[in-house]
Amino acid sequence: MAEQKPVLYDYWRSSASYRVRIALNLAGIDYTPVVINLLDGSHRAAPHLERNPQGFVPALEIDGQMLTQSLAIIEYLIETRGLPLLPDDLPGRARVRALAHAIAMDIHPVCNLSVVAHVMEITGGGAEARSDWMQHFISQGLTAFEAMLTKEKSGKFCHGDTPGLADVCLMPQIYNAERWGIDLSAMPRIRAVREACDQLTAFVRAHPDNNNF
Amino acid sequence: MAEQKPVLYDYWRSSASYRVRIALNLAGIDYTPVVINLLDGSHRAAPHLERNPQGFVPALEIDGQMLTQSLAIIEYLIETRGLPLLPDDLPGRARVRALAHAIAMDIHPVCNLSVVAHVMEITGGGAEARSDWMQHFISQGLTAFEAMLTKEKSGKFCHGDTPGLADVCLMPQIYNAERWGIDLSAMPRIRAVREACDQLTAFVRAHPDNNNF
Repeated sequence: MAEQKPVLYDYWRSSASYRVRIALNLAGIDYTPVVINLLDGSHRAAPHLERNPQGFVPALEIDGQMLTQSLAIIEYLIETRGLPLLPDDLPGRARVRALAHAIAMDIHPVCNLSVVAHVMEITGGGAEARSDWMQHFISQGLTAFEAMLTKEKSGKFCHGDTPGLADVCLMPQIYNAERWGIDLSAMPRIRAVREACDQLTAFVRAHPDNNNF
Repeated sequence: MAEQKPVLYDYWRSSASYRVRIALNLAGIDYTPVVINLLDGSHRAAPHLERNPQGFVPALEIDGQMLTQSLAIIEYLIETRGLPLLPDDLPGRARVRALAHAIAMDIHPVCNLSVVAHVMEITGGGAEARSDWMQHFISQGLTAFEAMLTKEKSGKFCHGDTPGLADVCLMPQIYNAERWGIDLSAMPRIRAVREACDQLTAFVRAHPDNNNF
């Protein structure tokens, strides 16, 4: 029986989707992207809520199941495909997960499109309120992340000399930071990691600009 | 050499600390709590930033290292102590992580004390703005979580008949939901899980009211 090609329910600008695209590319998994347009509300329509009651992207149909939550999906790829995004040593695994979660839990959700739309609604502040919000929380979060990176010796990437779960979370956050005009000049470790990731086809192919169908 | 007792840098009302307290109790690990008072700014003072550059609780000193990020800490306890908070089957593990992350990523960070303080500042709306914010995001998030729970057959707990990572995230979120007056009456699965967790000493001992030193 031929194995069914995984289907990624995707949106080019979603950070969470971008993470999963990087991981699928690093795992060498060929997938079919299906665009869920967050701008026209497709994510809140019945067919997508059937896939994911949260109404978020990404969702990944793989091995006969529908998986949701970007980091749960990536942990599944690590466990089923031997994708080496976590080091072998246990303290290293804890460090990489902490770095990944410092972005995926403490920056990204606060700057989610629906959260910021709510901020605009309650402040009546329009695009300026949105931009101020983004700058406040992304700057603060990435400054703490830079401090976490410099606290321990690292390699070319966030942890060691091969890309890992933390890098997979960092690169989409950098894309967002630049979109909202965050100054990364005081963050040399983050910039060095970004340069290392930019050398890798798996990261480049996953970039929003290369997935805006 | 006697093993050093783990030290938990803790705050009674922090949901993330509450999760780690539950996990430590379930693992039967005796620990020393050290209070980091979030109300007097102790978390942003130099000694705590040295432990955790993010300035958050919890931080857990264990096995000669300082670990941060609640779910990274709990994954470490799962990997080093055989704490059975994830099922053995791979699709089950993905489901439990997705449920846990639906709370830990999509509800909790948006309702973090510092985020809501910022909302109060930019809206000038005081306590009412805070309460509206909490109700909006917690209600919406738990409604989606209830739908995720009912989508697949479950046992007494979020997944199966033993407590897992999803329950460890859910119970602190329920504590917060009640604090902000969220109505759980339309969420029967969540209420059933809560009743099951309330029977377990590990959960009861971790409750904020039992950790307000």
